[in-house]
Amino acid sequence: MAGQGHEHGPTSPAIAAPAARQAADEVEVRGHIVDSLLLPKILDRILQMGGSFEIRDCKIGMRRTDPSYARIGIRAESPEAIDAILADLVEHGASPVHPEDAKVVPADIAGAFPEGFYSTTNQQTQVRFKGRWIDVQDQEMDCGIVLDPAAGVARCVPMVRVVVGMPIVVGHAGVRVIPMERPRESTLFGFMSSNVSSEKPKSVSLRSVAEAVRSTRAAGKKVLLVGGPAIVHTGSAPHVAAMIREGWIQALFAGNALATHDIEQSLYGTSLGVSIERGEPIEHGHEHHLRAINAIRRAGGIRRAVESGLLTSGIMYECVRHDVDLVLAGSIRDDGPLPEVITDTLAAQDRMREAIRDVGFALLIATALHSIATGNLLPAWVKVVCVDINPATVTKLSDRGTFQTIGLVTDVEPFVRALAAELATAPAAG
Amino acid sequence: MAGQGHEHGPTSPAIAAPAARQAADEVEVRGHIVDSLLLPKILDRILQMGGSFEIRDCKIGMRRTDPSYARIGIRAESPEAIDAILADLVEHGASPVHPEDAKVVPADIAGAFPEGFYSTTNQQTQVRFKGRWIDVQDQEMDCGIVLDPAAGVARCVPMVRVVVGMPIVVGHAGVRVIPMERPRESTLFGFMSSNVSSEKPKSVSLRSVAEAVRSTRAAGKKVLLVGGPAIVHTGSAPHVAAMIREGWIQALFAGNALATHDIEQSLYGTSLGVSIERGEPIEHGHEHHLRAINAIRRAGGIRRAVESGLLTSGIMYECVRHDVDLVLAGSIRDDGPLPEVITDTLAAQDRMREAIRDVGFALLIATALHSIATGNLLPAWVKVVCVDINPATVTKLSDRGTFQTIGLVTDVEPFVRALAAELATAPAAG
Amino acid sequence: MAGQGHEHGPTSPAIAAPAARQAADEVEVRGHIVDSLLLPKILDRILQMGGSFEIRDCKIGMRRTDPSYARIGIRAESPEAIDAILADLVEHGASPVHPEDAKVVPADIAGAFPEGFYSTTNQQTQVRFKGRWIDVQDQEMDCGIVLDPAAGVARCVPMVRVVVGMPIVVGHAGVRVIPMERPRESTLFGFMSSNVSSEKPKSVSLRSVAEAVRSTRAAGKKVLLVGGPAIVHTGSAPHVAAMIREGWIQALFAGNALATHDIEQSLYGTSLGVSIERGEPIEHGHEHHLRAINAIRRAGGIRRAVESGLLTSGIMYECVRHDVDLVLAGSIRDDGPLPEVITDTLAAQDRMREAIRDVGFALLIATALHSIATGNLLPAWVKVVCVDINPATVTKLSDRGTFQTIGLVTDVEPFVRALAAELATAPAAG
Amino acid sequence: MAGQGHEHGPTSPAIAAPAARQAADEVEVRGHIVDSLLLPKILDRILQMGGSFEIRDCKIGMRRTDPSYARIGIRAESPEAIDAILADLVEHGASPVHPEDAKVVPADIAGAFPEGFYSTTNQQTQVRFKGRWIDVQDQEMDCGIVLDPAAGVARCVPMVRVVVGMPIVVGHAGVRVIPMERPRESTLFGFMSSNVSSEKPKSVSLRSVAEAVRSTRAAGKKVLLVGGPAIVHTGSAPHVAAMIREGWIQALFAGNALATHDIEQSLYGTSLGVSIERGEPIEHGHEHHLRAINAIRRAGGIRRAVESGLLTSGIMYECVRHDVDLVLAGSIRDDGPLPEVITDTLAAQDRMREAIRDVGFALLIATALHSIATGNLLPAWVKVVCVDINPATVTKLSDRGTFQTIGLVTDVEPFVRALAAELATAPAAG
Repeated sequence: MAGQGHEHGPTSPAIAAPAARQAADEVEVRGHIVDSLLLPKILDRILQMGGSFEIRDCKIGMRRTDPSYARIGIRAESPEAIDAILADLVEHGASPVHPEDAKVVPADIAGAFPEGFYSTTNQQTQVRFKGRWIDVQDQEMDCGIVLDPAAGVARCVPMVRVVVGMPIVVGHAGVRVIPMERPRESTLFGFMSSNVSSEKPKSVSLRSVAEAVRSTRAAGKKVLLVGGPAIVHTGSAPHVAAMIREGWIQALFAGNALATHDIEQSLYGTSLGVSIERGEPIEHGHEHHLRAINAIRRAGGIRRAVESGLLTSGIMYECVRHDVDLVLAGSIRDDGPLPEVITDTLAAQDRMREAIRDVGFALLIATALHSIATGNLLPAWVKVVCVDINPATVTKLSDRGTFQTIGLVTDVEPFVRALAAELATAPAAG
Repeated sequence: MAGQGHEHGPTSPAIAAPAARQAADEVEVRGHIVDSLLLPKILDRILQMGGSFEIRDCKIGMRRTDPSYARIGIRAESPEAIDAILADLVEHGASPVHPEDAKVVPADIAGAFPEGFYSTTNQQTQVRFKGRWIDVQDQEMDCGIVLDPAAGVARCVPMVRVVVGMPIVVGHAGVRVIPMERPRESTLFGFMSSNVSSEKPKSVSLRSVAEAVRSTRAAGKKVLLVGGPAIVHTGSAPHVAAMIREGWIQALFAGNALATHDIEQSLYGTSLGVSIERGEPIEHGHEHHLRAINAIRRAGGIRRAVESGLLTSGIMYECVRHDVDLVLAGSIRDDGPLPEVITDTLAAQDRMREAIRDVGFALLIATALHSIATGNLLPAWVKVVCVDINPATVTKLSDRGTFQTIGLVTDVEPFVRALAAELATAPAAG
Repeated sequence: MAGQGHEHGPTSPAIAAPAARQAADEVEVRGHIVDSLLLPKILDRILQMGGSFEIRDCKIGMRRTDPSYARIGIRAESPEAIDAILADLVEHGASPVHPEDAKVVPADIAGAFPEGFYSTTNQQTQVRFKGRWIDVQDQEMDCGIVLDPAAGVARCVPMVRVVVGMPIVVGHAGVRVIPMERPRESTLFGFMSSNVSSEKPKSVSLRSVAEAVRSTRAAGKKVLLVGGPAIVHTGSAPHVAAMIREGWIQALFAGNALATHDIEQSLYGTSLGVSIERGEPIEHGHEHHLRAINAIRRAGGIRRAVESGLLTSGIMYECVRHDVDLVLAGSIRDDGPLPEVITDTLAAQDRMREAIRDVGFALLIATALHSIATGNLLPAWVKVVCVDINPATVTKLSDRGTFQTIGLVTDVEPFVRALAAELATAPAAG
Repeated sequence: MAGQGHEHGPTSPAIAAPAARQAADEVEVRGHIVDSLLLPKILDRILQMGGSFEIRDCKIGMRRTDPSYARIGIRAESPEAIDAILADLVEHGASPVHPEDAKVVPADIAGAFPEGFYSTTNQQTQVRFKGRWIDVQDQEMDCGIVLDPAAGVARCVPMVRVVVGMPIVVGHAGVRVIPMERPRESTLFGFMSSNVSSEKPKSVSLRSVAEAVRSTRAAGKKVLLVGGPAIVHTGSAPHVAAMIREGWIQALFAGNALATHDIEQSLYGTSLGVSIERGEPIEHGHEHHLRAINAIRRAGGIRRAVESGLLTSGIMYECVRHDVDLVLAGSIRDDGPLPEVITDTLAAQDRMREAIRDVGFALLIATALHSIATGNLLPAWVKVVCVDINPATVTKLSDRGTFQTIGLVTDVEPFVRALAAELATAPAAG
């Protein structure tokens, strides 16, 4: 692909446009250029945005996984066009050869970013500060970056948490993204990422998820479970409870419904009034979930209900007993709710942010709302598996930007039962 | 079906059990017994719950829609068994022949009902107070009933709003339910209720919904639209905006996402970064929704953005201009959110309760969360049509108890476009 | 419900219409009137069709499952109206009190019924011949009835098999239907029939299906499996093979695809080119299915491939080894096809008709085409369970008239794996 | 990407393995290397299959759409490994620099290919014969290639049509594939290809399909409609009939069901017994489809029924009147069937092969069976749009290899109605 000095561009603008209005710059790309299709993507973007390019240096690693390097000259019709192209390429993983420091302006309005703020992705990001590239902390998509010049520390900040005077990064200069590479360490994991279909060998998927849970624990990271009430309706609660008891799950994000039906099952043996044992609706069973909530509210909450001996089994019980970091986030469809439910959604998001700090693997089961909410908060390098019988839930999660998500279109109960059984063959370290 | 004095029961318990432990009572059923299948259902319940019955009086109306009447003697093995049967039959529309007044006990704990509280349905309910049946107001499922003895007024109260000392109805005595009849005035409406399938004549459904909107407005009731962001993604926002402008919609329940993408489209021409006009992703378009929220937060909210001329088109714009009762309820997946979004879910529910007071027809489009939340609040006599391309959303709504819901499995944009066109043929009264 | 001599009708036609044009008749209903909602349905139909009724006799059984009896007088404005009502009521299980013999006319055209032919349902049907009610044999929906006066035998005949001169029943006179009752022997089975949702306790469903398989075998009836290729794609083939080997399945209906991918897995370890073991696409694996077909065609068919030692495992192998009645029906999407595939669809239907003769339970897994085809052939009293991850397949089957179908919305592999394991706990009698 | 003489390989085998066992070869790639990601894909494949590469020549076109060229040296551990790599690269569009002629062997068994046959894709393919590359005719996936040495003509042949002695191409030598490029002429078309989701701007999709129909007709090619019975059930038949009448459709593939319900609607106003006008089930309407089939069989077929004046409207009527190439293919779920239905599936496939010869655009609506069958026959350069409310149908079509398919997840009736209206704005040329 050695450009022999001539330029590649859409309309040979070099002749048509006066040189004075032209502008040029240079970017570098590093990484698995062949493998990750980075280089063609970047060249393609330059051309699409009306620029032209010249490959000035290109080294390809000896092996597929060796890093490669390319330096690319870019030309466009105006400095504005060059800026737009550079801003775009930065998101695709290129970085300017002669970078500037990131620019910050103080926030002028509380709870809003200044004009022109840099809007984050969930990819690993760095900002240039006093000539050095520093990592942005608390990486999260759809935030701004606050850069503390005194401490030399940059981190993501949600819009609603902006206070007047906060130094917020604006523009794309001095910001670079280190894009994720395609997963290669585990081919099992790789196979699942291809597309969303229920017609795939299922036991392979299962082993892959079990392996991800094990290796996450072995690496000292937390496993996060995000679950919807279908876990209880389908009779999967005992299997989840077992996984908690055996140390496989360190954090649980759910809503009032999962917690309520889990407690309903523990107190009455039903879920939404349907007997889990016999599969039939029970007389007045549809009231059970409300009576369960009422009982827990009367007891002063889930933790107290466990301590007082009212609640003696189930997912909530095991969470209390094994100090799982439990975040129950409220929604407008909640009955009650249970006392532990955080009814303010911004407060709930903040608790979720706290809880994901050391999460290495997230398993999202049968909930679109909590899965998307969690996906919004997770950095791109946390592995995510989303299990749902409805392919639309998985598709929606990817559409919203959580690209690292691997979707398993399968039925919840058999999956959770088999996963618990698979994990039980070798206990968690602790 | 004249029982000739002998009893019908599962095991002829009259012989096996000593008479002393037996118990008996009598219930009445009124209404469209033939048409609504009430009588067989009630007889079936008695037998299923271990009782036996004797039909003591039975008058069938001359026409299908004339009210009928039946008086049924019930026997069971114990007073407790009779109580259980009576409690069950009350929910199916039977009422004791010799009723007592409803019993109340004062709430002993704030935010929780007393033990044994009567748990409401969304059907029209009456309580007996000083020998008279009075209507329960603010009918809503999964609430308790507070009965003010001074005012002689009963109304539904959500658990979380209970204050210590509130007189709450307990048990089933003195409570009766007047079950909804099957819809008959409109056969078009009737046809749609059969089951959830996409393979039905579609133009009939459309005319039925248009007719329901018109007749609701003609009756001086409000039309409520509950919508998800797919309305904007699919390019349906202009059609919804037109319906608002023309006076067909009086209340709108939605979340941050619908409002954000509507504003994104108005400001940038995109929805989730995809051009509505050309259907293609725009450069950096994925940031547009965040920039739209930021712009509105900087402006001080949607209403101010309309007043200042920043926001000049779209659903939100029309809501502000035409005084639509707009409730934007927060959720944990929200970015921002927009200033008008109510982030506390209990506060949002209360605003929704207020707004549904005069609603005669609710149209739920492409949102599971807001649809289920709304379904939880609506009494059974408000007609509900749920439009979604995913049959699971419709099924879920019915499973959660909103039985009056008619599901239309269809694509949002063509449906909304055609509905707006159909309604435009004859303008709303006001 | 004793009508006291007065009539119930929509518009009191007795006054409006001259008596001379009126007509009347009488029908009987027997069976579980209370339980099956038969009586209200019939009264409702009479009124809907413009008639009026009078209940002349009504006896209700002592227990829920005891048979009841009602005799109902019907009036309408004309003999034609009475005929239409009677024809309708017959399908709902009523029968005329003063019946005539069934009328037959000889078929005038080969492969078509005479005008006015009686069109069958899949319910148990009888025709009146020389004053006696005789059972119609080979009950199948959407057929005609051929009544052999010499042998006094009636049976269903498909349109395409009509030969000139065949005596075909016309009109509704002398035909009666004995409607199925709701299943009650097994409450587990009952629970599943409520509606199509994936949110149900799954292990209950599984035990119910296993129990149905066992009781069918214990009763000396055949179990029929109807399966699609997703059985192989999802890695379920070994479990199905095990069930065949252990004597649980006597007949298998499938298409070229299931057989091909099963053989592909046996020969190459892949299904549609994806390794079942590792879950990854294999180099050139997409060609494997074609090479598998080619190999079997070269060998002279599946049976010969087993005999020659080419094919040594899998579903097809076990079918050959255990004399399962295998019907591979062709479709236009077939590659090859395999030599055993019956490419003429009418011939395939005839083979399926033969094979279902002694089937007591049909398990339909992951195939819409073969499931609907089988559903068309099965009488209403054969229990059918349809397993598919897509709720639309189940809905479609019911919409097409196979009302006895119980739908399980679940994932194929875990279901089949667990079913095989459950059945393996106690072996089949033989 | 100029390889500076050193090799890139997974494990530096040059040292470990004795040179004598090594093998090498050279391939060329031409086309839009940057744009189509061809080059990285090919390099990736070489490494994955255990080979190493050296880029020996590389010219990149000036513009994105200009052709580029690369010559790549390949090394592997054995001649067999080189062969496997070459075979694989051929499918990805590379071709050997020093090619041989294609090898043929005569078929030894009727209806089966010889061992080692070349299995075709649906991409444009050429075979080398006497030193020249000749186009393979009747391109179709999952066939073999018969090469007539006398005529110098190569064409695809389905397995079942092989006769003893036919010269069949074996191995990959002398075969090359010219891969399709990504569509670029129409960005509208491009946008739709991204993924399968119902949440996209719908009117853009509609205009794209209308434009494809128009441009196909303008180019003198045929438009093929492949449709399922939901077209009739949803009330879309009149719109399809209009499109046929106005000259937009030249070929129609369907089954007995679409034809039957279309005729049922014409004769009785119902589809599956449901009134299209009023949306309600009609008395005895479920028999209508059988009576419709019977009437057509009595008339001697669809064409005769049109000629005799029995059938006067609908899709079938318009097909007869406007000489649409109608292929009704049988399936095992058919009632009747209608006389024009081809009940032998191999005969039906052959008729479909004939009919697609000049098809330039295929619109597949609401049928999985006929869509997959058609997809199997179409070469990759025929544009395909698949419209279904169920995303699984679209996914399945792509999984089966018809990669050029663009899926529209939308409701049939509004789509077809709007398409007919859009096309009616400017009439077809002929």
